[in-house]
Amino acid sequence: MTNIQDILAGDRLSLSRILSQIENDTSEGRSALGELFPHTGQAHLIGITGAPGTGKSTLVNQIAYHYRHSEGEGEPKKVAIVAVDPTSPFTGGAVLGDRIRMQSLSSDKGVFIRSMATRGSLGGLANATAGIVQAFDAAGFEIILIETVGAGQAEIDIAHLAHTTIVTEAPGLGDDIQAIKAGILEIADILVVNKADRSGVESTERALLNMLKLAHPVKRIFSHHSRPATNSPQPSENDSPIWIPPVLRTVATEGAGVPELLDAIAKHRAYLQETGELELRERARLEAELDNRLQNTLVDRWRDTLKSGQYEKMLDELVARQITPYQAVQTLLNGGKLK
Amino acid sequence: MTNIQDILAGDRLSLSRILSQIENDTSEGRSALGELFPHTGQAHLIGITGAPGTGKSTLVNQIAYHYRHSEGEGEPKKVAIVAVDPTSPFTGGAVLGDRIRMQSLSSDKGVFIRSMATRGSLGGLANATAGIVQAFDAAGFEIILIETVGAGQAEIDIAHLAHTTIVTEAPGLGDDIQAIKAGILEIADILVVNKADRSGVESTERALLNMLKLAHPVKRIFSHHSRPATNSPQPSENDSPIWIPPVLRTVATEGAGVPELLDAIAKHRAYLQETGELELRERARLEAELDNRLQNTLVDRWRDTLKSGQYEKMLDELVARQITPYQAVQTLLNGGKLK
Repeated sequence: MTNIQDILAGDRLSLSRILSQIENDTSEGRSALGELFPHTGQAHLIGITGAPGTGKSTLVNQIAYHYRHSEGEGEPKKVAIVAVDPTSPFTGGAVLGDRIRMQSLSSDKGVFIRSMATRGSLGGLANATAGIVQAFDAAGFEIILIETVGAGQAEIDIAHLAHTTIVTEAPGLGDDIQAIKAGILEIADILVVNKADRSGVESTERALLNMLKLAHPVKRIFSHHSRPATNSPQPSENDSPIWIPPVLRTVATEGAGVPELLDAIAKHRAYLQETGELELRERARLEAELDNRLQNTLVDRWRDTLKSGQYEKMLDELVARQITPYQAVQTLLNGGKLK
Repeated sequence: MTNIQDILAGDRLSLSRILSQIENDTSEGRSALGELFPHTGQAHLIGITGAPGTGKSTLVNQIAYHYRHSEGEGEPKKVAIVAVDPTSPFTGGAVLGDRIRMQSLSSDKGVFIRSMATRGSLGGLANATAGIVQAFDAAGFEIILIETVGAGQAEIDIAHLAHTTIVTEAPGLGDDIQAIKAGILEIADILVVNKADRSGVESTERALLNMLKLAHPVKRIFSHHSRPATNSPQPSENDSPIWIPPVLRTVATEGAGVPELLDAIAKHRAYLQETGELELRERARLEAELDNRLQNTLVDRWRDTLKSGQYEKMLDELVARQITPYQAVQTLLNGGKLK
């Protein structure tokens, strides 16, 4: 058995072991999560997402490096990186990502890097990622960077795990109208034009600013996504400042613009705290996790009640077009009877 | 009420009306789908996916155009385009896509274009897309092009709706190791390097071929994804040919390479039929739809049994870290009692 005290005290080996248990959703992992959960809620969770080719991994490395090496009061913050790769269900896309991590990070005991690839369902991945983030949080990592590779709904869901979401773009991808997605922009708290030493940086920036103008009225929807019970703080319509996502330039390969990005993250954190939005996001985050777990558990329980061969028989009839999908669902959920 | 006979006879107005009902999952839509479903199973479903910036929409337009205008025996085939945009949950990304569709397509009565954006859950989108595709199939559209915008798990799920999946790439995106995703390659039946008049086309092609070598052993997993009941055809390990995804070049803006792409699609269709793989994919497709619908229905039914305020109370305790997510699920699913 893993000693929870070792993990809370920051023992890397114990943490590493339990992360695997959590990712594989074993009973040991679930039990450990239960013991770790009361110790969570301290870390600042930062999501980084954006289209392929925008240099996210390099930027994430640099953010971690700057948190470890920037001058400031006290000890440098402990940083965890969770690299999520929902597009690679079978081969080791996420593992490949690890190999090109900076050497200086892998030898730093204040940094912990964990890659995850899809195992089975997307819901399973979101659950596992939430669990991994909680373990890091409980283990005292103050900054948790959640990097997602793609630009689809899966990434939006995972970005919802974060307190601050950074969306990356790069010049030269924007000639296609689809390269800049309004849906992605709506989840952005900070926009980064990476590879800003390339030509076309101005037009990418301009496109982002134009899209922001469109996205902005809608963005407020997220602030009210989770309805709190009575007595929870709620930003008032009148006196709360509104966060307008800044558009920053970086050249991640050289670290240029990264200190400014860290400043923007700190400002966003302060904004979240001042307005009560931090608690709203915490609530939305836990609500999403709860819904996801409820759904998976419901399906598992129902599956256990199925008689052997019942599902296959229904599928056979469906393939033969003898019944419709709707009829198949009704029959299976009503214990073999069409209601 | 919609007259199902009108839709089966190819009346565009009736079809258009019912597509909205299906997308919004109304009772009329569900009832119509039930009547249409026995008439499905004739169309060839072609998925087109790939990273943003690879020119998918233009390519899809050209594929449709060539199906309508290529010389061959008999009438040109009726073509439906379903443009799915899971990255834009709020604003009209998908609608924007429509505006830049080719004029020549929009005036062709043998072509029907339908855009869809996320409404609520991803599962809802996949369901709605499956329904739309079935309606087109029943209405006599012989070619159904399913275009997805992103490159995440959502797109992989939707690509699983298809018989033939085309994955697009473009030169100049591939300088990032993440631009070419093994996970996406594994679902590809045909690979297209679009924008092939750009420099760097050889290196993109080479990268794809190298990734294919890695992906190929894993690809066979898909052939056995759905286990058929007895008597269903199954490709034998010994005498079945293996499909190696061809890598084709296109310049979609000029239509170059598109006739060759149509040839490759026809060859893939013949391969699917000869090997029995077509039936396996049909089965896998309907199985995925069944699972998705089962899951949504289970969650809806459970939600109806909840007492008012019960869910919010549990969420409050979760936010306060008084209980763990696992405990919250157990309590909610056991009617308020922790088991």
